[in-house]
Amino acid sequence: SETKEPLVHSSHQEVCNQSEWVHLNVGGKLFTTTVTTLTRTDGDSMLARMFMHGDVEWQSAVDETGAYLIDRSPLYFEPILNYLRHGLLVLDKSVNPEGVLEEAKFFGLTSLIEQLEDVIEREQPPDDSTPIN
Amino acid sequence: SETKEPLVHSSHQEVCNQSEWVHLNVGGKLFTTTVTTLTRTDGDSMLARMFMHGDVEWQSAVDETGAYLIDRSPLYFEPILNYLRHGLLVLDKSVNPEGVLEEAKFFGLTSLIEQLEDVIEREQPPDDSTPIN
Amino acid sequence: SETKEPLVHSSHQEVCNQSEWVHLNVGGKLFTTTVTTLTRTDGDSMLARMFMHGDVEWQSAVDETGAYLIDRSPLYFEPILNYLRHGLLVLDKSVNPEGVLEEAKFFGLTSLIEQLEDVIEREQPPDDSTPIN
Amino acid sequence: SETKEPLVHSSHQEVCNQSEWVHLNVGGKLFTTTVTTLTRTDGDSMLARMFMHGDVEWQSAVDETGAYLIDRSPLYFEPILNYLRHGLLVLDKSVNPEGVLEEAKFFGLTSLIEQLEDVIEREQPPDDSTPIN
Amino acid sequence: SETKEPLVHSSHQEVCNQSEWVHLNVGGKLFTTTVTTLTRTDGDSMLARMFMHGDVEWQSAVDETGAYLIDRSPLYFEPILNYLRHGLLVLDKSVNPEGVLEEAKFFGLTSLIEQLEDVIEREQPPDDSTPIN
Repeated sequence: SETKEPLVHSSHQEVCNQSEWVHLNVGGKLFTTTVTTLTRTDGDSMLARMFMHGDVEWQSAVDETGAYLIDRSPLYFEPILNYLRHGLLVLDKSVNPEGVLEEAKFFGLTSLIEQLEDVIEREQPPDDSTPIN
Repeated sequence: SETKEPLVHSSHQEVCNQSEWVHLNVGGKLFTTTVTTLTRTDGDSMLARMFMHGDVEWQSAVDETGAYLIDRSPLYFEPILNYLRHGLLVLDKSVNPEGVLEEAKFFGLTSLIEQLEDVIEREQPPDDSTPIN
Repeated sequence: SETKEPLVHSSHQEVCNQSEWVHLNVGGKLFTTTVTTLTRTDGDSMLARMFMHGDVEWQSAVDETGAYLIDRSPLYFEPILNYLRHGLLVLDKSVNPEGVLEEAKFFGLTSLIEQLEDVIEREQPPDDSTPIN
Repeated sequence: SETKEPLVHSSHQEVCNQSEWVHLNVGGKLFTTTVTTLTRTDGDSMLARMFMHGDVEWQSAVDETGAYLIDRSPLYFEPILNYLRHGLLVLDKSVNPEGVLEEAKFFGLTSLIEQLEDVIEREQPPDDSTPIN
Repeated sequence: SETKEPLVHSSHQEVCNQSEWVHLNVGGKLFTTTVTTLTRTDGDSMLARMFMHGDVEWQSAVDETGAYLIDRSPLYFEPILNYLRHGLLVLDKSVNPEGVLEEAKFFGLTSLIEQLEDVIEREQPPDDSTPIN
């Protein structure tokens, strides 16, 4: 399936297109990603709107290194960005899904919010209310 | 109060207002956040008093990068700052709530202190004292 | 093939050959490794193709420090790179193997994909379907 | 004893007094703290002696950023420094107390050594020797 | 006991001797330590040979900050370096000892290899083969 694009496939292309690259300063930690990743899903998420039409419309603050400033938790942004990269929610055992849920809500990632609410519900200990008889 | 600024919603505004951004050097680790976050809850917390009326009154030390120096644990400051961002206490399983409690006490975050004391009490193994028969 | 260089063994040689060294910026985190490591296994993995024939063919983007930009999770790239170093899959208990699997798929590391799928299958709770009797 | 300085309380003062601030490079990781913290407890601990009488007596090596070089584990120094800040030993579940004990011994923090030995003893699985009947 | 060496004791001396200090870039992460630590045990380990006779013999590559480049996992190098500092193997619960074993083998730390193989064997679930009656 790559026979017509002899030198690049899609991932290669992503890596190559330098103008695509974006640095984010999330709560003090630097993340590096691409416009393609940030605008991939949930077209009206905050990140998609922020980076979809260039930087002109959105007058975001940048830090001294040129990274876009986002006042959120870097810890819980990590699985958010990973989700935007490949479309899967992957959580390490030590990560509290409620922290990731707050980020998904902040950024308006609707499909991810639902998945996280499912994870949180499943983790809840079963209801100990005994029906009165 | 934002009815005159039709193009932005509150989160956008926070991200945009560059003068709002604050760097903190907590125990050697850099955190980036906004004055709005630091002064949001518990009006007479130390952070609120530190950043509410500009930097004039409070002659805080800054490091060579301009970050405000705070001699506390970065590990346990993380959930404190996250709490100030969205109002929820979120703890990863590996984090000792007693460490976060010490920070909440230091910064004078009354509502958070109560929540943390509840978490700690619930984690305690049940009292093994057997009632005398 | 190293019999003519009596003073070094292979590891020494790797450490010495400065032109070998490569910096990678994976999602914002810097990794340092060698061309030998990146091209060691799975000859047609993306990393092998990226670094096998010099940098000429592959017009990769680099950041301001000269590190090759890769828009993937640094968290799950760590065991990938470690695997390329010594050929073993080593996962800490807190790491979700599904995150590493996504990276193995992205980089086209066939033998690692199989190992990770085995790990994930073994971790699954046993099928709770009770045979009808 | 602070009645003559009406505008500050003790924590404020600590934050303000710029000459107080110290950077430590512990095993490659930077920590920022104050002389007050480092000399607070255990007056003849190594850190207290190192920073009590100014830098003149103690000809410590500093790195290129001016941080004092200490050849110890940053991982296990973290709870040590936290202990010096507020006087409580706080350990995350994932941290091995034996690592922290080695640091407490190195720095000569007598009261902390005892606490850590207690923690380690309590974590030991109970002696499986069955008394001979 | 320090009356004859009025200004230094052995730990002090280590900290003071600036020419001793070494920076290592292990897989992209910086570690700071001393020649004394790196050459302390296992005299014919790779690290001992690398730093025992000065830098002349061993033409190691250094990065732009002057740190010696080592193409290994920083995650599993941490307990290795800690072991060289105080002679004890200390592993956090989350760390996979098989990762540390690979580093001990790479660096040729014989006594540590044995300790790690013991740890790994003890962690193995007991052999479920039931002896035939």
